[in-house]
Amino acid sequence: MKDDNCIFCKLANGIIPTNSIYEDEDFNVILDAGPATKGHALIIPKEHYKNIYELPDKTAADAFKLAKKLAIKMTDKLGADGFNIVQNNNEVAGQSVFHFHMHLIPRYEGDGQHILWKPTEPDADVLKGIADSLRD
Amino acid sequence: MKDDNCIFCKLANGIIPTNSIYEDEDFNVILDAGPATKGHALIIPKEHYKNIYELPDKTAADAFKLAKKLAIKMTDKLGADGFNIVQNNNEVAGQSVFHFHMHLIPRYEGDGQHILWKPTEPDADVLKGIADSLRD
Repeated sequence: MKDDNCIFCKLANGIIPTNSIYEDEDFNVILDAGPATKGHALIIPKEHYKNIYELPDKTAADAFKLAKKLAIKMTDKLGADGFNIVQNNNEVAGQSVFHFHMHLIPRYEGDGQHILWKPTEPDADVLKGIADSLRD
Repeated sequence: MKDDNCIFCKLANGIIPTNSIYEDEDFNVILDAGPATKGHALIIPKEHYKNIYELPDKTAADAFKLAKKLAIKMTDKLGADGFNIVQNNNEVAGQSVFHFHMHLIPRYEGDGQHILWKPTEPDADVLKGIADSLRD
């Protein structure tokens, strides 16, 4: 299920050349062309799924198993001090290419990046109400 | 393999009460007490692993399959517009509790959060060199 108009379909399937660091039957992992840090890479499934909402269970499971394997290898080979894995869905969450992908971001002391949020302080009863609404 | 001094071991295993939204044999999913947005939750394995570097393959696979399932459910039930999944390892990457966990962050138009990085623009030959060093 490839989408002819999707740039990530072309990158993942070798139709456009990339800086690939890993490839198997289901995934291509390529360096991000506008990296946060040295080694910032993208896990891209070869099949076209817009986002996590469309992802088959097996692809989800295999993607994070691969993320773990590469986090270990990249941290070691690059001498990183830590690692972020970030996966964004829909524009409001920062997704800009609508083909599921997972960001692998090696982190280094003093790298100048800040990939975090501002915490809020809701009342205990507000949190309890949200939890009640989300439980089955 | 629980760690008696680990707060997330206590939260995941019900020793300290939480706003749990999902629980199975291997994981507890609880609302973050300092949420980025409404519904911000944490997938926490009941076993103690410091970070992704220590995570067994099966736990990694099951965690992201669960993330997918909950992303769909939470987006629907909360009326979210998108979704971030963020997983931080080591202090430099923003990890503050050293028990592996995955952030599930529903996103809403105008929620005021910005969970992104500053892109850089390395030369093509620099990227090629990094890719060469990371391929087997």
